[in-house]
Amino acid sequence: MLERYGHGGDLWTAEEAFGRPKEQFLDFSSNMNPLGPPSVVKHILRDGWRDMVKYPDPAVRELRNKLSLKYDIGVESILVGNGAAELIDLTARVLKPTVTGIARPSFSEYEEAVHKSGGGIYNIPLTPMHYFDLQKQDIEAAYPDVDLFFLGHPNNPTGKLVPRQVLDMLMQSNRRLVLDEAFMDFVPNEHEHSLLKLASTSQQLVVIRSMTKFYSIPGIRLGFMVAHPDSIRQIQHLQVQWSVNYLAQRIGTAVLDDLDFEQSSWQWLEEEKPWLSQQLQQLGLEVVPSDVNFLLFSFPERMGIDVKMAQKHLGHQGILIRDASLFEGLNKHYCRVAIRLREDNERLIARLRHMMAEFMQNRGQADDE
Amino acid sequence: MLERYGHGGDLWTAEEAFGRPKEQFLDFSSNMNPLGPPSVVKHILRDGWRDMVKYPDPAVRELRNKLSLKYDIGVESILVGNGAAELIDLTARVLKPTVTGIARPSFSEYEEAVHKSGGGIYNIPLTPMHYFDLQKQDIEAAYPDVDLFFLGHPNNPTGKLVPRQVLDMLMQSNRRLVLDEAFMDFVPNEHEHSLLKLASTSQQLVVIRSMTKFYSIPGIRLGFMVAHPDSIRQIQHLQVQWSVNYLAQRIGTAVLDDLDFEQSSWQWLEEEKPWLSQQLQQLGLEVVPSDVNFLLFSFPERMGIDVKMAQKHLGHQGILIRDASLFEGLNKHYCRVAIRLREDNERLIARLRHMMAEFMQNRGQADDE
Repeated sequence: MLERYGHGGDLWTAEEAFGRPKEQFLDFSSNMNPLGPPSVVKHILRDGWRDMVKYPDPAVRELRNKLSLKYDIGVESILVGNGAAELIDLTARVLKPTVTGIARPSFSEYEEAVHKSGGGIYNIPLTPMHYFDLQKQDIEAAYPDVDLFFLGHPNNPTGKLVPRQVLDMLMQSNRRLVLDEAFMDFVPNEHEHSLLKLASTSQQLVVIRSMTKFYSIPGIRLGFMVAHPDSIRQIQHLQVQWSVNYLAQRIGTAVLDDLDFEQSSWQWLEEEKPWLSQQLQQLGLEVVPSDVNFLLFSFPERMGIDVKMAQKHLGHQGILIRDASLFEGLNKHYCRVAIRLREDNERLIARLRHMMAEFMQNRGQADDE
Repeated sequence: MLERYGHGGDLWTAEEAFGRPKEQFLDFSSNMNPLGPPSVVKHILRDGWRDMVKYPDPAVRELRNKLSLKYDIGVESILVGNGAAELIDLTARVLKPTVTGIARPSFSEYEEAVHKSGGGIYNIPLTPMHYFDLQKQDIEAAYPDVDLFFLGHPNNPTGKLVPRQVLDMLMQSNRRLVLDEAFMDFVPNEHEHSLLKLASTSQQLVVIRSMTKFYSIPGIRLGFMVAHPDSIRQIQHLQVQWSVNYLAQRIGTAVLDDLDFEQSSWQWLEEEKPWLSQQLQQLGLEVVPSDVNFLLFSFPERMGIDVKMAQKHLGHQGILIRDASLFEGLNKHYCRVAIRLREDNERLIARLRHMMAEFMQNRGQADDE
C-alpha cells in the first residue's frame, strides 16, 4: 500500500509500487495548494546556498515577529516548529493527557502523539448521516472520560470545520482543547473561524498551524503554534535546538507577504471546489461537502469498488489517490483527493470514469458466465 | 552574551549585541569547514524549488542507502535526523540512563538531553595537566555510579579524540556508551578512529554523526546515527514524521560523492591547523593540541584578560569568538575559535594582537596612576 508510512504523498513508495519515476505521478494523495510554491521560494533557494553555512536563528525571531504582526498576537505566544508534526508531538508530551477525545476519522498523528506520551484515546464518532459534522451530544457524552480534546479544525480527511456551537461549548466546559488548524488558511474569511487569537491568552486552548499546505512547501517543514506564553515556554523547553532550519525560516517570513498568492489561491478554490465536487457526484460518487482544498468521497456499496483496488488501478496510470479507509472510522469505499488545477482534475475524472466503466463491464461479464 | 541560546554561531544575537548586520561578521564561534558548502549544494537549491511541493521521504531511503555503502553498514542500523541535536535528544529519551557520565568540559546538549529524559549527571574531569585527555582512572572511578557514558569523540570544545585505550576499556566494561562523532570527518584517517562500524552490530554502543560541520550546512540540519537495528527501531518510533526535510536529504546524498571536497578539506586543515596554533602560541596564549578544525586556548592568568571582555571587544570589530568559559569545567580565560582560511585567520591574529597590546597598555597606565 502507498501509505506504508501512514500518510499520503509518499512518492518513493509509489515509485517502488508502480515502477514509474516519482516525477511522473499526478499526486492527489497529498493536499497541497497547486498554485504553490510562491515564486519567492525560488529566489530564496537560488540566492541562499551560501547561507547554509549559518546556523538557523535558535529563537526564530524574524518569522515570529512577522506572524505576530499578521495575526496580532504577542511573539511570546508563538512557537515555530519543524512542521506541524513536531508541534503535535511536543504538545502531547507537555500536556500529557490521560484520555484524549479524538474524532473518527481524523489525522493519525494526534493518536500517535498521545500514545507516545502514554495516554489513551476516546473515540468520538463522525457519521455520514450528519455529513461528518461533530455533534454536541457526542462531545458531552465524552466529558466524564476525557481530559483533553484534540480536533482538526477543519478536520482531515473530512474537510469539515468544527461547528461554532461545539467550539463555544468546549470553551465553556473548561476542558483542555488542542485545535489543529493545518488547513485553516484555505478557508475564506479564516479570521471568522480560526481560534488563533483566543489561544494566545488562554490557559485552556492550544492552536497548531501548518504553513506547508497553503504555500505548498512540505519539503522544507514548517508549522507554528499559538498558546499562552506559559505553555509556550514549557513546550519550547522540550524542543530540540535549531529544530527549524534556516531556509524554512526565510521562506516562512517571505511568503507571508505574498498577498497576491493568497488572493489567487482563494479564487482558484472558490471555482474549482464546486466544479470537482459536481463532477465526482455526476460519476455517482458520494461526496462529503468540504470547507477546504480536498474532498472525501465514497464509491457507493452497489458499485462494489473498494478504494485499494482503485488506488492500485490509478497508480499504474500515474495518478495517486489517498486510501481513506486507513482512517479509523471509514470503510473500504472511502477515498480522499486533493483539489488541483482544472486540467489535472479533468484527468482524474476521466481516469475514474474509465476505471468505473471497465470495472462494471468486467462485473457484467462475470455475472453472465 | 552571544551564547544567549547556549551555543556559538548565533548571528541574530550578534547583530543585536554589536549593532552590525549579520553578514558583516567573521564568525570564529561556529566550527564550520570554510571550504564549504560544496558547490553541488548550489545546484540542488537552484533546481529544487519546485520540489518543495513534495513531502520528504519519511524513510530517508536514498541517503541511508548512500551512507550504508560509504561506511559498509546495514541500512537498518542507520537513522537520519534533523541535525545531530535531534538524535542526541532521541537517544537519551530511549536509553533513559539513570546517571550519565559526561566529560567536563563537553558539548552542552548531552547534559540537556539527559536532564530532559529525567536522568542525573556524573562529571568526569578533563584537565589542562593531561592536555584535556580522558584518563582511564577517571572512567574507572565513575563505574559504580554511572550506567551510561556520553562522550564527544573528538570532544567539543577541547578538540581531543577519546584515547583508544579508554574506548577499549569502556567496550570491555559492558557499560553503555554513546559517542558523538560530530567532528570525526575532520580527522585524517577517520576510519582508524571512528567506532561507526562497531556500533552497527553492538547492543552497547551508539554513534551519532553530524553532516553539517564538515560540509558547512548547519542551516539545513542533518545528522545520522548508527546503532544495533533493535535500538534504531526504538529510537525511530519516537522520531517525528518527516523530521528530515527534503533538501537536507537531497544535499546529504549528493555531498557524499564529492571526494575532491573531502581531499581539499583535509589538505587545508593539515596546513592551517599548525599555522594558526603556532600564531596563537606566539601571542603568548596557551593552546590545547587539537585533532579537529577548532582550537581551544586560554589567556594566561598574568595577562588578566577574560574571554567575555575579549568577545565583546572583538565583536565590536566584527569578529565572533566562542566564550568557552560557559562550558562547565573551564575558567573565565578560555576561548574557542574555528580554524578558517588563511586570510581570515590572519585577521583574527592581528585583532587579537592589537587587543592584547591595548589592554596591556591600559593596565600599565592604570598601574602607574
